[in-house]
Amino acid sequence: MVQILVINGPNLNLLGTREPGVYGAVTLAGIEERLRARAGSRAELQFRQSNHEGDLVGWIHEAGRNGTGVILNAGAYTHTSIALRDAISGAGATVIEVHLSNVHARESFRHRSTIAPVARGVIAGFGPLSYDLALEALLDGREGACA
Amino acid sequence: MVQILVINGPNLNLLGTREPGVYGAVTLAGIEERLRARAGSRAELQFRQSNHEGDLVGWIHEAGRNGTGVILNAGAYTHTSIALRDAISGAGATVIEVHLSNVHARESFRHRSTIAPVARGVIAGFGPLSYDLALEALLDGREGACA
Amino acid sequence: MVQILVINGPNLNLLGTREPGVYGAVTLAGIEERLRARAGSRAELQFRQSNHEGDLVGWIHEAGRNGTGVILNAGAYTHTSIALRDAISGAGATVIEVHLSNVHARESFRHRSTIAPVARGVIAGFGPLSYDLALEALLDGREGACA
Amino acid sequence: MVQILVINGPNLNLLGTREPGVYGAVTLAGIEERLRARAGSRAELQFRQSNHEGDLVGWIHEAGRNGTGVILNAGAYTHTSIALRDAISGAGATVIEVHLSNVHARESFRHRSTIAPVARGVIAGFGPLSYDLALEALLDGREGACA
Amino acid sequence: MVQILVINGPNLNLLGTREPGVYGAVTLAGIEERLRARAGSRAELQFRQSNHEGDLVGWIHEAGRNGTGVILNAGAYTHTSIALRDAISGAGATVIEVHLSNVHARESFRHRSTIAPVARGVIAGFGPLSYDLALEALLDGREGACA
Amino acid sequence: MVQILVINGPNLNLLGTREPGVYGAVTLAGIEERLRARAGSRAELQFRQSNHEGDLVGWIHEAGRNGTGVILNAGAYTHTSIALRDAISGAGATVIEVHLSNVHARESFRHRSTIAPVARGVIAGFGPLSYDLALEALLDGREGACA
Amino acid sequence: MVQILVINGPNLNLLGTREPGVYGAVTLAGIEERLRARAGSRAELQFRQSNHEGDLVGWIHEAGRNGTGVILNAGAYTHTSIALRDAISGAGATVIEVHLSNVHARESFRHRSTIAPVARGVIAGFGPLSYDLALEALLDGREGACA
Amino acid sequence: MVQILVINGPNLNLLGTREPGVYGAVTLAGIEERLRARAGSRAELQFRQSNHEGDLVGWIHEAGRNGTGVILNAGAYTHTSIALRDAISGAGATVIEVHLSNVHARESFRHRSTIAPVARGVIAGFGPLSYDLALEALLDGREGACA
Amino acid sequence: MVQILVINGPNLNLLGTREPGVYGAVTLAGIEERLRARAGSRAELQFRQSNHEGDLVGWIHEAGRNGTGVILNAGAYTHTSIALRDAISGAGATVIEVHLSNVHARESFRHRSTIAPVARGVIAGFGPLSYDLALEALLDGREGACA
Amino acid sequence: MVQILVINGPNLNLLGTREPGVYGAVTLAGIEERLRARAGSRAELQFRQSNHEGDLVGWIHEAGRNGTGVILNAGAYTHTSIALRDAISGAGATVIEVHLSNVHARESFRHRSTIAPVARGVIAGFGPLSYDLALEALLDGREGACA
Amino acid sequence: MVQILVINGPNLNLLGTREPGVYGAVTLAGIEERLRARAGSRAELQFRQSNHEGDLVGWIHEAGRNGTGVILNAGAYTHTSIALRDAISGAGATVIEVHLSNVHARESFRHRSTIAPVARGVIAGFGPLSYDLALEALLDGREGACA
Amino acid sequence: MVQILVINGPNLNLLGTREPGVYGAVTLAGIEERLRARAGSRAELQFRQSNHEGDLVGWIHEAGRNGTGVILNAGAYTHTSIALRDAISGAGATVIEVHLSNVHARESFRHRSTIAPVARGVIAGFGPLSYDLALEALLDGREGACA
Repeated sequence: MVQILVINGPNLNLLGTREPGVYGAVTLAGIEERLRARAGSRAELQFRQSNHEGDLVGWIHEAGRNGTGVILNAGAYTHTSIALRDAISGAGATVIEVHLSNVHARESFRHRSTIAPVARGVIAGFGPLSYDLALEALLDGREGACA
Repeated sequence: MVQILVINGPNLNLLGTREPGVYGAVTLAGIEERLRARAGSRAELQFRQSNHEGDLVGWIHEAGRNGTGVILNAGAYTHTSIALRDAISGAGATVIEVHLSNVHARESFRHRSTIAPVARGVIAGFGPLSYDLALEALLDGREGACA
Repeated sequence: MVQILVINGPNLNLLGTREPGVYGAVTLAGIEERLRARAGSRAELQFRQSNHEGDLVGWIHEAGRNGTGVILNAGAYTHTSIALRDAISGAGATVIEVHLSNVHARESFRHRSTIAPVARGVIAGFGPLSYDLALEALLDGREGACA
Repeated sequence: MVQILVINGPNLNLLGTREPGVYGAVTLAGIEERLRARAGSRAELQFRQSNHEGDLVGWIHEAGRNGTGVILNAGAYTHTSIALRDAISGAGATVIEVHLSNVHARESFRHRSTIAPVARGVIAGFGPLSYDLALEALLDGREGACA
Repeated sequence: MVQILVINGPNLNLLGTREPGVYGAVTLAGIEERLRARAGSRAELQFRQSNHEGDLVGWIHEAGRNGTGVILNAGAYTHTSIALRDAISGAGATVIEVHLSNVHARESFRHRSTIAPVARGVIAGFGPLSYDLALEALLDGREGACA
Repeated sequence: MVQILVINGPNLNLLGTREPGVYGAVTLAGIEERLRARAGSRAELQFRQSNHEGDLVGWIHEAGRNGTGVILNAGAYTHTSIALRDAISGAGATVIEVHLSNVHARESFRHRSTIAPVARGVIAGFGPLSYDLALEALLDGREGACA
Repeated sequence: MVQILVINGPNLNLLGTREPGVYGAVTLAGIEERLRARAGSRAELQFRQSNHEGDLVGWIHEAGRNGTGVILNAGAYTHTSIALRDAISGAGATVIEVHLSNVHARESFRHRSTIAPVARGVIAGFGPLSYDLALEALLDGREGACA
Repeated sequence: MVQILVINGPNLNLLGTREPGVYGAVTLAGIEERLRARAGSRAELQFRQSNHEGDLVGWIHEAGRNGTGVILNAGAYTHTSIALRDAISGAGATVIEVHLSNVHARESFRHRSTIAPVARGVIAGFGPLSYDLALEALLDGREGACA
Repeated sequence: MVQILVINGPNLNLLGTREPGVYGAVTLAGIEERLRARAGSRAELQFRQSNHEGDLVGWIHEAGRNGTGVILNAGAYTHTSIALRDAISGAGATVIEVHLSNVHARESFRHRSTIAPVARGVIAGFGPLSYDLALEALLDGREGACA
Repeated sequence: MVQILVINGPNLNLLGTREPGVYGAVTLAGIEERLRARAGSRAELQFRQSNHEGDLVGWIHEAGRNGTGVILNAGAYTHTSIALRDAISGAGATVIEVHLSNVHARESFRHRSTIAPVARGVIAGFGPLSYDLALEALLDGREGACA
Repeated sequence: MVQILVINGPNLNLLGTREPGVYGAVTLAGIEERLRARAGSRAELQFRQSNHEGDLVGWIHEAGRNGTGVILNAGAYTHTSIALRDAISGAGATVIEVHLSNVHARESFRHRSTIAPVARGVIAGFGPLSYDLALEALLDGREGACA
Repeated sequence: MVQILVINGPNLNLLGTREPGVYGAVTLAGIEERLRARAGSRAELQFRQSNHEGDLVGWIHEAGRNGTGVILNAGAYTHTSIALRDAISGAGATVIEVHLSNVHARESFRHRSTIAPVARGVIAGFGPLSYDLALEALLDGREGACA
């Protein structure tokens, strides 16, 4: 069965408990439940969250070693981390970058992603559905991303 | 039935006939056929393509007036057109920005989108699948995009 | 009788039908009616609108050829079009740049105008009155603009 | 009767005595006379000029306190003064920014205005007529500027 | 007794009379009263306000000459005045820069201070309490600021 | 016989009728006549002009499809159009960029060309002779441009 | 009793043992002792230090959850961490940013703070006294910071 | 006899009393005395100093009106004042910009002068001798500055 | 015997297992073995690797405390970490910055190092030999680096 | 007979011996032979090459003095030399800037030319043919370049 | 007797023979004659000119070795040469930077001097008189330049 | 025997005679002696120095032609010379860039190297030892630099 690792970065553990006006009432557990339901028997999912950049780097290494596809919401590290970028290209991991919000409609420092150039693709702005779409892309798309 | 307008901008009429190494062998007709198959009876699709910025602006107006959802691959105008941006926000159209390629892995002038801040979300890098995912988002997502 | 051409650029056909909170309830037809009333027999007015940059360029040529004064609200092309700028200086047209809103109080990409340097003057922020003031300037001002 | 304060900033006392090739032969007194004639009994005008930024700030305060409309040609302070900007927004004064010349056709450091974002509107390039148009805008426009 | 000069720059005379939503209902007189109460017999306070950059420069000179500590809210001149900066370093005055609001949460042109590099320290964002904290710092801190 | 398409962009229809001091007295018809004389039986020339970016994009597609060489004076679109750039590389057209004037001696926004990187070469500053030299290059040069 | 968390970021564990010329002879333990003395029974203080950005993010979450006020000296992360900024706004924590040194008098990369816009206020340049003033602000200031 | 006005801007009244390590022990009075000795009967000198930008603007107007040559040390206003620049070009005054110190060897914000482009020439770095050299230039140089 | 700490940052644990085309077939263990052979009895080496910025900061502190020389390949943190820079200068550690690849021949964001200004020197581009040369420099060079 | 000086700058002596993949197999001697053949009796050609900026400057002086037309491939000095620019405008030489390669398709630092603004025109991207076209332009074009 | 070396850089050998409208009719020989007359027996002058940056570097070394004062008009190298800057500071030469024209009134790339920060002072805009003033400064000023 | 050319650029002939505080007491002759001792019979060394950019370019050509390895301290030309960069890549020379000082700890204009991207590697900050390490790298490293 297809292995998929869902990695959430800094502050995403706060989801649903604060700022519902911005991020909605959904929790990370809720996203997991929803995504597991959608995956059904099509994929085996693992969920992890950390506020530590180094943890994210290590998990990407692990995914690359095991050939596991990655759905990555790197939160704030999206915009600053060259280490994550190097991890993705160095480990040869297949990574889809996702965001709950439309980052392009927020502060300008959120418009630039250091990891997008080495990701397979980017999905942003659809709330929890962003994760679902990434799942579909990983299941469907192994056959040939368009450069 | 849900109405959806698929708008393709400049040079996308070339798909499949040139540069297969970059954009694959798929044609715009192929994308249409594939997307119609996926939509089935869930949505009524219209496809349009133009190299004229003004045509795209007018089509967005029409979609806003009719409450039609829009899948928009604005091609090069993605990066330069304030008129398209104003059309989307002025007409109140629900627009999902799509790209076949991962624009963030190409020249730096393709990293900035003038229309993303007023789009509902962005999907980039999955080839024809980008359109499929946008379709799913439009069908699923009307209930509440995450800011 | 003095000939005046009023040119409106992209998205201005939307006026009054969408975003009344931003642009008010006035329509382009309303602006035309108001301006014709003010002009009375002092000037013969023509109104045109297009979303195509190329149409605007051609109309400026026509005005330059005929010696017609121009009131130009170029909308989004104000900020990006070198072609319009070249049309104005190349055709020798007398053009007054107008804006309904105070563009300087909006997004920073609306602060720069590529056409202002070759316009006779700029009037921005007075709603439909901006057009009226431009009319007065064209009727009064032929005698000697201040460099 | 409507009260209007016409404020002229640094170097505008030189008008008419130097550089007639650039600014024409009109003096500040001439502008005053012309504007008083146009206002007639429609408005009571006061004229002031100073080379001191602090004087301009104080006069804006006074106008805000008294509900007096302001026609402001801030000269060089247009491009550098955050204090004037804060005065306008802090005092809640209704200010129309005017310029004799088309500042956008001059040196690039004259293209940026720090006060325009908090002014009601901007009129530039029509010589003494710029003041007349601002007067018309203040008399006509109290009913609702377009954002 | 310790001598302290409290200098307020442009527009701060407006405090309490306008924009209470932004700056609160406190007036400059209220700040003075509050600060005098806190100082008690620990320090002799003088309060001054001017909209003129030159006045502020002069008062800094005076403080430097007399060895008087300075609490300086330079308002808009904080961001533009090299003259104030030179006054502080030239006169050898001990100056604490204060702001009522958190300037870093406002427009980007308020993020840069030309005087902070020559001030002893900066306190921003605490409303009238900012002045109180500066007073404590001046009374306590003469023994050794940390570089 | 060699097929060559000569494409002229916005405002070039004005040639010879306005601003003779800048562009000389030559008209677009004159350039055509001169170039046909030089080509003689060596090449079959087609001339087209449009103020619409979309028209230029379409003509480049046509030339790529037919293997026609292109002499392109894109006027103002030289500096702003990513769509034209994509058309040239997407259609695989052989394009020589020409300019009547030395664009590097004019305003700085004319120094950057978005299409030059995908053109075969650039010729600028020789008036109508620029077109002649481009013709010679197309006839001579098919054998191997130097990277 | 009021709960306050004092968070110190990277390298602050070095205080007092190295570079006394720059940071003085005080140690982190000395700052703690001094601050506890000042707080007395007015507040219950906790002190933490870490070189890991992720630890700081987690502690901010904890403070937000518990409604604990935070005195934060984020050291070098002040200038680079978007994750800390998101933690503060996401957790709704009340944070006062402090610095021992006047960061504006040091290298230019220390002049910009990514966290200041979401902090309640900033205090910089007073050595250990910076912490004392932040304590006073937290105890006094809950009633209404000035925007 | 030749009339010369020596204008000193903000903070120059501090000369000699503070920071002798930087500016030497000379006072403004000392510079005046030295310069009067050198001028002898060759020129009639007036000395003025102000911390107010507006005063400097007015004195330049006066010099332009009277045809008086100006030696101008504008201090910090050298780097920020467009009003002074406009005063010099507007009043047609002959101005030589002087600096005691070599401003190019100091902070980068002192490298740019807004007034130098409209001054006749610039002399910087020679201490009080800078004024002497400017005097020689004004006496000698009326016959033809080199563009 | 001389103590030397060899610190490798994020992603360097991947060496030899992925991207041999870029980084060669050597592993971190291979580098250690080679370097131990070269050091022989001249130095006692310790090797550490972490993906956590905070770990690297702590190890630098330890080296500074013990007077241990450091060979530091900080990987991606080279370009973003002010915390590492502060650790080096704060702990007074002697650090030689090394890179396997010639970072100046790669992406532009790898050309800037935040830690180089506080390192003793930089060696880049020689593969595993870079570490050897750093070892020689540490053994030889204690006597006086050239400023 | 028309005199023409062909000047080649730094590194062009390497042509043909290195990097044939980039510059082709042609040598500078080959270019000379080809160009002499084309010129025939129409012009007398001189060829010079130097790696010294100063030599190029001197040769431009000589050409200006003698009224000799110049074909100039300044190599790397194209992008950095203000001295060459001043030589061309100072000596009044007629210079055509040529490049073998399409410099706009190479590194970004090759897109800017300091000498183009003072050259008569620019020809780039046609290999040795670039020199031929420049020759034709010099022979044909003396009658009136288009500004 | 005081030794002074007058060094003129690239293109200054053209003086007087071309562009008299810009640089006047004076030749370098004329400047020499005039300066020798002024120096009389007060100083022994040597004049040199070269278009080679390396020559200028060498002459500065020589002057530093011999303790000779230098009047340096480095022409275009003023704006680009770090080598000249290093020569001046490395050789410890006393150099006065002179310019015939007011470089600040010309193109923006002439406003920046790489050598001014290491020169004793700068004199610009007085034509040949600039050299005279530099001579006076060298003779008078050895006693103490103002930092 | 291995041939190695040691090239020193502008101002390096000054070593040891001036600024010992910065560069130490070592002379270029001392570096040569030290390096010859280290090389022994392992390599045949040639030393050259010039202040002329063109000389350096030529020597690189020579080394490329002969397959000689190069140790290059280009001094100030490191930061400005595109010609040297083109020489290295054009001639295919193996070049190691060395610096006595840690250029990254000096002025910001010394942080950028135009030649590093085409060098094999860079060694900076070790005084004369920098040359020794480069020698070791040339002798050892021919077998495979790491990209």
